Amino acid sequence: MSQIQFIRNLIIETPSKPGNFAKVASAIGELKGDIGDIQTIKVGTLSTIRDVSIQCTSEEQLDQIVAAINAIGDGIQVHAVTDDVLHAHEGGKIAMKSRVEVRSLGDLRRIYTPGVANVCKVIQNDPVQADYFTGISNTVAIVTDGTAILGLGNIGPVAGMPVMEGKAVLFDQFAGISGIPILLDTSDPDEVVETVKHIHQSFGGILLEDIGSPHCFEIEERLKAELDIPVMHDDQHGTAVVTLASALSACRQSGVELSQSVVGQIGLGAAGLAISRMFMAYGVKEMYGVDPNSEAADRLKQHGGTALDSVEEIMKTCDIVIATTGVQGLIKPEMVRQGQIILALSNPNAEIEPEAALEAGAAFAADGRQVNNILGFPGIFRGALNAHAKDITYPMLIAAALAILDSTKPGDLVPHPLDPTVHANVASAVERVANEEENTI
Amino acid sequence: MSQIQFIRNLIIETPSKPGNFAKVASAIGELKGDIGDIQTIKVGTLSTIRDVSIQCTSEEQLDQIVAAINAIGDGIQVHAVTDDVLHAHEGGKIAMKSRVEVRSLGDLRRIYTPGVANVCKVIQNDPVQADYFTGISNTVAIVTDGTAILGLGNIGPVAGMPVMEGKAVLFDQFAGISGIPILLDTSDPDEVVETVKHIHQSFGGILLEDIGSPHCFEIEERLKAELDIPVMHDDQHGTAVVTLASALSACRQSGVELSQSVVGQIGLGAAGLAISRMFMAYGVKEMYGVDPNSEAADRLKQHGGTALDSVEEIMKTCDIVIATTGVQGLIKPEMVRQGQIILALSNPNAEIEPEAALEAGAAFAADGRQVNNILGFPGIFRGALNAHAKDITYPMLIAAALAILDSTKPGDLVPHPLDPTVHANVASAVERVANEEENTI
Repeated sequence: MSQIQFIRNLIIETPSKPGNFAKVASAIGELKGDIGDIQTIKVGTLSTIRDVSIQCTSEEQLDQIVAAINAIGDGIQVHAVTDDVLHAHEGGKIAMKSRVEVRSLGDLRRIYTPGVANVCKVIQNDPVQADYFTGISNTVAIVTDGTAILGLGNIGPVAGMPVMEGKAVLFDQFAGISGIPILLDTSDPDEVVETVKHIHQSFGGILLEDIGSPHCFEIEERLKAELDIPVMHDDQHGTAVVTLASALSACRQSGVELSQSVVGQIGLGAAGLAISRMFMAYGVKEMYGVDPNSEAADRLKQHGGTALDSVEEIMKTCDIVIATTGVQGLIKPEMVRQGQIILALSNPNAEIEPEAALEAGAAFAADGRQVNNILGFPGIFRGALNAHAKDITYPMLIAAALAILDSTKPGDLVPHPLDPTVHANVASAVERVANEEENTI
Repeated sequence: MSQIQFIRNLIIETPSKPGNFAKVASAIGELKGDIGDIQTIKVGTLSTIRDVSIQCTSEEQLDQIVAAINAIGDGIQVHAVTDDVLHAHEGGKIAMKSRVEVRSLGDLRRIYTPGVANVCKVIQNDPVQADYFTGISNTVAIVTDGTAILGLGNIGPVAGMPVMEGKAVLFDQFAGISGIPILLDTSDPDEVVETVKHIHQSFGGILLEDIGSPHCFEIEERLKAELDIPVMHDDQHGTAVVTLASALSACRQSGVELSQSVVGQIGLGAAGLAISRMFMAYGVKEMYGVDPNSEAADRLKQHGGTALDSVEEIMKTCDIVIATTGVQGLIKPEMVRQGQIILALSNPNAEIEPEAALEAGAAFAADGRQVNNILGFPGIFRGALNAHAKDITYPMLIAAALAILDSTKPGDLVPHPLDPTVHANVASAVERVANEEENTI
């Protein structure tokens, strides 16, 4: 007889008294929960926190087990019930680790006092030496105010921390960069700019992340102007880089020249505006956009684009259409023009399913599942840091997009995000352009 | 024939062209420099940076080699010449590392999008879950404005970074805490407090470090009052904890009861004032101090101590004398009273050498070589974080001092700083008291 079975992990705290964990095990056993791996998360003086894996046959049984453990008393309690996804995030996904080991008083005297004073003096006399004797130039702050976390909206910076830690994981794995999440308790542009300025010497670069529109525009613009280290809002320009690479890839497959095409952007939020600007920087001369918010449309005009009044107009006017609205099914099959290239990037539900777009006559259609920022930001910052760039410029970003395009296998829209060569290629391209730019200034 | 020989490491950048490094090796060889280990520090697209170890026989030879390499041209240059100490700091001493590995798209979907959205929602619904699914509660900011780096003074936060990284190394090795250096470009108390408040949600605690007097007092006081996470200025209270432990150890060896003794503090800067306050919190009823700065003397009075007018008066009045002035030889042997306990803590040159003090009649004398903050801060924060303490209180700090005392072997003043049991004992003691305090509130 087959039974539904699933595994959950309980985070259980027991005061450090012999026999306490046995009570927990008994409570689980009495309700026929099957105990699997047990991992100790924290051994404190007064209590121990364990991650106990339990195989259950129903949600009811799981609830009963949790209730029974909480009913034991004596300070024993279940703090959380985790599944496979939550389990991967337990205790946080990153940690600041020492790169040296202090094994002797000699080590301590070299690494800490009194030896460290000489290192401080070397930097005091020649500040550039901080590049060699500290980690500053290899460290990027990942700054958020929590106002636009993924598609979840304004859930606050602490609830957004798992995303920031995720970025730091990717920085470490794909670019060897130390990513430091900085959670801001303010969204006021003045306060954000002041705060980041006051701490910026700790870092070689600033990645702005999941900051809402429109304050993200002012914050990025002011920080780029006022700081002499690279600053980039990933939801704008990281997304735009990967979108440009995707569009170029679609054009290559369709035999179309992007810079000669008429391009339309549906949705002019942080991503949509940045995509429009990136396409114009790449050389697109006719760039159209639409957004129900008139301020968003005005921003496109300020940057040299043309605002249209409806999705229908965009679909009628443009050879290539990008959509980043979050509105499922916004593009109807009857709007599709013969031979059009359509990237309907909203996740998880696209503005039009690629199959429907192709059936309606599109030459190429894709949704946003593969168009992931991961392909951009690690290599972009690696390249910028390597070049000691003072800014991230459009030529650097376009070089990144071309490097992503060059790393794409025939038939694919973009490269596999875990392929380390993509990130190395992006870093090289960005570093090269940054160095050329510096030489021309 | 014996020759003076020494090893230096040259940090050399060569543009990435075949044959470039051979030119460097030839230049070194022609001047009879002996090349040892070569380590690649950075492989960029356009250039490579290597650490080249060279054995030399004279400073002149070393200078000639550096000049010869810089004379090659083609962009080849020596960025720095390092010795054994500098070598230990190359590239920085810390790095933010991933605790998970992304090996497949499945991993990516669990650790990053779309899986991470579930983790965010769990925390949004119940903010306490951030303790389990992020690293926040295990992370401490190491905040400095660079105004009082070691004994070097106001050399700026970037030149102070090697010290901050050193603290992070010790946090990792002795307490498993992620220490994040935060370098402030302002010393204005209002701006420092605002900045730290705006970023404090990123951290489980704040270690203030090498912030000068008197602004350190206001900054710490305001942050302790306004934040609900532990805040501690190490140069004040970390130093005071280790000094209290040392004094108690000296008293134990001399058969003296500290709380019944008359105690004098020479020098009322950040450390001296904090030591005086700590001793009074421990139970010392007659606490005297002296400082040429009348504001410093006033601060002692505000906290319940008595200011005297001269070092001579302190030496005449007190059974136990602590000195933290930085003035070598300030205490003359003729000032020493029979049976006095003297801790002359200034480094590297004490106010009176222990031998001279003992010869002059002191019952016990020590200098500051062993009295190192390392014994305090890692365990203090480990304990405070374990207990989810909202503050670091005097009872917690006194418990830390007693734990250090209890971990001291007979005949020693303090424990060996690399003995992991000290740090574990301090953490346990602090956690226990923090939990008791919370239960009584």
